[in-house]
Amino acid sequence: MKILIAPDSFKESLTAQEAADAVECGLKKALPDAEYVKVPMADGGEGTVQSLLDATGGRRQTVEVRAPLGDRVAASFGLSGDGKTAFIEMAAASGLHLVPHEKRNPLITTSYGTGELIRAALEAGVGKIILGIGGSATNDGGAGMLQALGARLLDADGTELPPGGAALAGLARIDLSGLDACLKEVAVEVACDVDNPLCGEQGASAVFGPQKGATPQMVAELDAALNRFAHIVERDSGISIAHHPGAGAAGGMGGGLLLLPNACLKSGVEIVMEAVGLAEKIKDADWVITGEGRMDGQSVRGKTPAGVAKLAKRFGKPVIAIVGSLGADYAAVYDAGIDAVFPIIRSAGSLQETLQQGRANLISAAENIGRFYLVVSNR
Amino acid sequence: MKILIAPDSFKESLTAQEAADAVECGLKKALPDAEYVKVPMADGGEGTVQSLLDATGGRRQTVEVRAPLGDRVAASFGLSGDGKTAFIEMAAASGLHLVPHEKRNPLITTSYGTGELIRAALEAGVGKIILGIGGSATNDGGAGMLQALGARLLDADGTELPPGGAALAGLARIDLSGLDACLKEVAVEVACDVDNPLCGEQGASAVFGPQKGATPQMVAELDAALNRFAHIVERDSGISIAHHPGAGAAGGMGGGLLLLPNACLKSGVEIVMEAVGLAEKIKDADWVITGEGRMDGQSVRGKTPAGVAKLAKRFGKPVIAIVGSLGADYAAVYDAGIDAVFPIIRSAGSLQETLQQGRANLISAAENIGRFYLVVSNR
Repeated sequence: MKILIAPDSFKESLTAQEAADAVECGLKKALPDAEYVKVPMADGGEGTVQSLLDATGGRRQTVEVRAPLGDRVAASFGLSGDGKTAFIEMAAASGLHLVPHEKRNPLITTSYGTGELIRAALEAGVGKIILGIGGSATNDGGAGMLQALGARLLDADGTELPPGGAALAGLARIDLSGLDACLKEVAVEVACDVDNPLCGEQGASAVFGPQKGATPQMVAELDAALNRFAHIVERDSGISIAHHPGAGAAGGMGGGLLLLPNACLKSGVEIVMEAVGLAEKIKDADWVITGEGRMDGQSVRGKTPAGVAKLAKRFGKPVIAIVGSLGADYAAVYDAGIDAVFPIIRSAGSLQETLQQGRANLISAAENIGRFYLVVSNR
Repeated sequence: MKILIAPDSFKESLTAQEAADAVECGLKKALPDAEYVKVPMADGGEGTVQSLLDATGGRRQTVEVRAPLGDRVAASFGLSGDGKTAFIEMAAASGLHLVPHEKRNPLITTSYGTGELIRAALEAGVGKIILGIGGSATNDGGAGMLQALGARLLDADGTELPPGGAALAGLARIDLSGLDACLKEVAVEVACDVDNPLCGEQGASAVFGPQKGATPQMVAELDAALNRFAHIVERDSGISIAHHPGAGAAGGMGGGLLLLPNACLKSGVEIVMEAVGLAEKIKDADWVITGEGRMDGQSVRGKTPAGVAKLAKRFGKPVIAIVGSLGADYAAVYDAGIDAVFPIIRSAGSLQETLQQGRANLISAAENIGRFYLVVSNR
């Protein structure tokens, strides 16, 4: 019997690799003779680089880049074991966590550092870049990222725009001719699981601005600036980003990335599944075990277990999820292809205590799932 | 397929009947065509009367009896549906919870009220009494209980001893001839899962006295008094209780009960299993589900799931436990015959919150166990 173990990380408790190891450890106690294949998974969110590094035996590379407010910060990205793919999380260079609470101001934060990370990946000679854009501090439509990669965003005087989303209000011309030529040869897959447009009520500024520190007035200002950005982009490059689903992700980063010659926005978990060759592995397995830190009704929307289950069902494989906690309305995951789901908490206690017991609880849950499997299949 | 559901109560959250109902509700979602047999269980501790009433379709009867400090209290006991068996919890008449904290004094607390409950059961015409002796406030060797049933405990002047364990120091003669004659025809099964002797370091006073309010000095005084009690009992009745395993249970109540003509101390869960005819029901089932509020390494010692599992294994039936929480060293339950155990908590949170979610969590766990069963057995 071959068991594929493909969990996401258990946030704040275990990386996906650690989770997979714990599941294997527990199952092995009950089913020592089974064959185990572990694939640390992710959905494009936090932990995606780590999971892809673990899955491909890759390594981290660190470069100094521009932080959202212009200071320098050491940011790392991942290179797959074969060196052909780079894994980047926007948050490493342009994350909200890099801006102290009292300084949060999406009018001026820039995605420039993420552009520098992309440039570093291009210099490393990769053929593909996988980019997660969650957790950003920016609302600049990816303008900074584009500037870092050689685009020119000019005001009416022909002067390069200063950093930040607000400056886009003064955008008069955009020139993409200077974009790093390597970008034509390198596929940029952007993990994007929202379909917000760039502007308007469901746009970047209105929906994601407030969590980055935007007041209602700032939201209005940024929304108008992104509108201007989309208008000039379409006029000068012929590329229409305003209504592209996902353009509003990460402060409009989703939209800005569409200006790269070889970029596309895709479901994060599908990007990761493809990157780790999950379909082949599922095809070859008798059972699929997945999991994540918290599963609830939202988990069917682009989260790892639902993605894994959907793929497994294409091959008719049974899927068991093991999760840190199980929130309301989780029953929707059954329709997504998860056959049964087991939470692992063994005792009432604070979140902090519970997170610390993650590994032991996960081993215990997996062991009992294995034991139950054994007794059912022996009857 | 026939599934036997025989859980204990989930203390402070669900009665055994409620737990069984929740398990059935969850399993039915996955396995609607299975046949379900529910048997609320208990181990002789708190909740035993309720479980036995639920299991036999019985009713409660309330009588006024003497509380541990002499005041009157309304206490109930159970009568099985067929009226042939009485279910009594000593705590109902002589429980620690009946004595305010500042008045706790095991020198003077009496088990008289429990004797009155036994008398009431005899008057109801039962053929058997099942007596749980947990949670008592007393350390009187069951002297009060014996007095209530007609025994005479006399001092050197031939005067009846006053209530309480300390008074036994003045015991000069015991006369059992006045014991209620019905006791000869009525089996008294005492649920007792400790094997402490009456006296000494492992005796009633030393081990259980402190939790009833005994100071070290009181422990010494009570231990000497129970020693005197055992000595006079053996001299006057020929019955040796001092070293009988379990005589030290419930402040020596275990020992005092041995003076009834037809009483025996037995494992609580075995008494209950026999009372509800569990063996026949297990024999007839394909699967056995049990459970309790908290399972840990101690659960193999006389707790319901271990007892149920042991019996089920005699008939080669698989046993799944579903539990509120799972403490350290629980792996010992595997050896007791439990094939797999699943905790039900779905989210980190306080004990209070967790207890409130007991029913929902139990339904959810049972449903997923049923779903997993289905997918394994269909392969």
